[in-house]
Amino acid sequence: MTILKRHDTGAIAHLTMDMPTTLNALSDEMLAALQAQIESLMTDTTVRVVILSGAGKAFCAGHDIKQMNAARASADGGKSAFQDLFARCTAVMTGLQNLPQVVIAQVHGIATAAGCQLVASCDLAVAADDTKFGVNGVNIGLFCSTPMVALSRNIPRKHALEMLTTGDFMTAPRAAELGLINHAVPSPQLEAETLQLATTIANKLGAAVRIGKPAFYQQLQMPLDQAYAFTSEVIVENLLQQDTIEGMMAFAEKRQPNWKNDYNF
Amino acid sequence: MTILKRHDTGAIAHLTMDMPTTLNALSDEMLAALQAQIESLMTDTTVRVVILSGAGKAFCAGHDIKQMNAARASADGGKSAFQDLFARCTAVMTGLQNLPQVVIAQVHGIATAAGCQLVASCDLAVAADDTKFGVNGVNIGLFCSTPMVALSRNIPRKHALEMLTTGDFMTAPRAAELGLINHAVPSPQLEAETLQLATTIANKLGAAVRIGKPAFYQQLQMPLDQAYAFTSEVIVENLLQQDTIEGMMAFAEKRQPNWKNDYNF
Amino acid sequence: MTILKRHDTGAIAHLTMDMPTTLNALSDEMLAALQAQIESLMTDTTVRVVILSGAGKAFCAGHDIKQMNAARASADGGKSAFQDLFARCTAVMTGLQNLPQVVIAQVHGIATAAGCQLVASCDLAVAADDTKFGVNGVNIGLFCSTPMVALSRNIPRKHALEMLTTGDFMTAPRAAELGLINHAVPSPQLEAETLQLATTIANKLGAAVRIGKPAFYQQLQMPLDQAYAFTSEVIVENLLQQDTIEGMMAFAEKRQPNWKNDYNF
Repeated sequence: MTILKRHDTGAIAHLTMDMPTTLNALSDEMLAALQAQIESLMTDTTVRVVILSGAGKAFCAGHDIKQMNAARASADGGKSAFQDLFARCTAVMTGLQNLPQVVIAQVHGIATAAGCQLVASCDLAVAADDTKFGVNGVNIGLFCSTPMVALSRNIPRKHALEMLTTGDFMTAPRAAELGLINHAVPSPQLEAETLQLATTIANKLGAAVRIGKPAFYQQLQMPLDQAYAFTSEVIVENLLQQDTIEGMMAFAEKRQPNWKNDYNF
Repeated sequence: MTILKRHDTGAIAHLTMDMPTTLNALSDEMLAALQAQIESLMTDTTVRVVILSGAGKAFCAGHDIKQMNAARASADGGKSAFQDLFARCTAVMTGLQNLPQVVIAQVHGIATAAGCQLVASCDLAVAADDTKFGVNGVNIGLFCSTPMVALSRNIPRKHALEMLTTGDFMTAPRAAELGLINHAVPSPQLEAETLQLATTIANKLGAAVRIGKPAFYQQLQMPLDQAYAFTSEVIVENLLQQDTIEGMMAFAEKRQPNWKNDYNF
Repeated sequence: MTILKRHDTGAIAHLTMDMPTTLNALSDEMLAALQAQIESLMTDTTVRVVILSGAGKAFCAGHDIKQMNAARASADGGKSAFQDLFARCTAVMTGLQNLPQVVIAQVHGIATAAGCQLVASCDLAVAADDTKFGVNGVNIGLFCSTPMVALSRNIPRKHALEMLTTGDFMTAPRAAELGLINHAVPSPQLEAETLQLATTIANKLGAAVRIGKPAFYQQLQMPLDQAYAFTSEVIVENLLQQDTIEGMMAFAEKRQPNWKNDYNF
């Protein structure tokens, strides 16, 4: 029934976009479902890692063109509806970065236009090696201006601009070389490899990851001196957490830490 | 006669720097000719893609050292002349990014100092695989401080700094890996491959590319939230264009779009 | 006796962190010794290149955990001591970039946490191909929030974030591909290759490198127009230096320059 399924295994939340007939297009409903999960996860202290995947043949093919065409029927030709759509889409894309959890895209089939933006907006990404990435709105006369925001913060500018202006697909191995994804793996191993990455991260001290991950993006946008002033505060806060004290003691004493790992903050 | 030849084929403008005896140095005359073409192209709605190449053995060897040496004869040792020279050079380099057309550098032989900056300043670049790239002013005692602005926005900083401080050449395949160029191709195929890339882009909806390309560089310099606010406006404007409406309708109806493609804005 | 050895060969200063029993940890003493050398080098006009290496099995394993644990004994649980520690560490990391000399990290064994940050903060880096790089504080519950400032300005964000959240090591060849180091070389050739790179740079006109290197980082943080305005001033200043005048004359006359190379400013 729901178009965004969720099931949790331990500290890992599995989110699956499940509307295969539209290649998991980011319809109004899908954006709303993603936004609802983001808001729920924002205050969820049981989840440490999120895996975002798509059911069916594709990860995500971008916006729902039929819905967008229908919006043109209004008096302003759709202008206010489109403004609203991109505000909601932006909230989802930036919301993923603001989450305290690490979000991993598990990508297969195609990830195009806003679907490629979704991959670029996740913290990490693992893809089947036959996945096709594209920002190919230009093929239908719609330059991928919002997807390029995320894409151009992942890969070098000339490669981003080539994708944007040609509409050509990029392969998964090339995407891993350039920084759009972390790993390209054989398709049959996609789920297992992604889960292993998620498990590795979920086994760390949750409080440490929760404090560091959002800070990563904040410091990236600062001048160097300001970035150091900010992250110095972040790391001092981290240092004063109970489990971190134990972790550092255990390290010095060459033993395993005895962590509560209950987000002691 | 002219040192910067131009001939147009369809929506593609071919600009050829044609002063082989100076390896197409960016003399006062060459900069003026480039600036004039940039100003002309800025309002040219028939051209969608520009290919910039060099006649003779090299793409471009940088500034014209003899002219610069001659400028030292003035009372201030050349200071005001140099200030003026770099203001004009900067206008050309940034002017290429501000153009609504996609500018592709077709590179062969050598691209050094401000010639390398020129490649870095174009939107896309294809190079013969035996091309040598360098910012080697340091070899004659002149650190490539202005070329480094463009170079360091194309490739990782340690690789840029190595080129700047050693004067060593970078090969074309390495330049493609790092992001200075898009593709390194066998020399005999350089012209055909560049033309094919240009043709692919020229066949897109011109209005979409014209609106997206300059926005690409503008959003790159903004914080994330501002970049999304800005590109949301850009994509909404794009969505309201007549040919884009037709393109999206055609896509939904699984047919070819019937575009006027006359820059309907 | 001293934990940071220095010996100069010509215009190259060799700094060796020499506390093998702690894997050259950045203790209070090591940070103070590095800071003292940075301050000395800042005004040293005989040195043009600095090679920073580590004695023993590792380049540097990051902060001194035992010292940090001991700091917790104070009334505030170590808070003010930690704030002070990261201020001193930041001064060293940013100080390396502000130096007029080119600083090359010669890396072997491991470079982890703040040790990896130290590599990222050097201008250039050459590493033995079996070196392991990591920002693995997360393994003991301390997210590498300050190291990520330098790391995320060297390599693409998804690769940086994977290292930070998994604690996994990166190999030297991969680090060279992504931009954390310049070259990965066979271990027996590490010293010779690093020295050759240093010698190449030391043989350039010192005044040109001194003016260009700090400007590199300054312009990187500016919007494009401002970066060009700034570097245009820098290159004009460079152009008016006596040895640069001679270098450009010699180039035009196809002869070797006759340089004093005494930092004529």
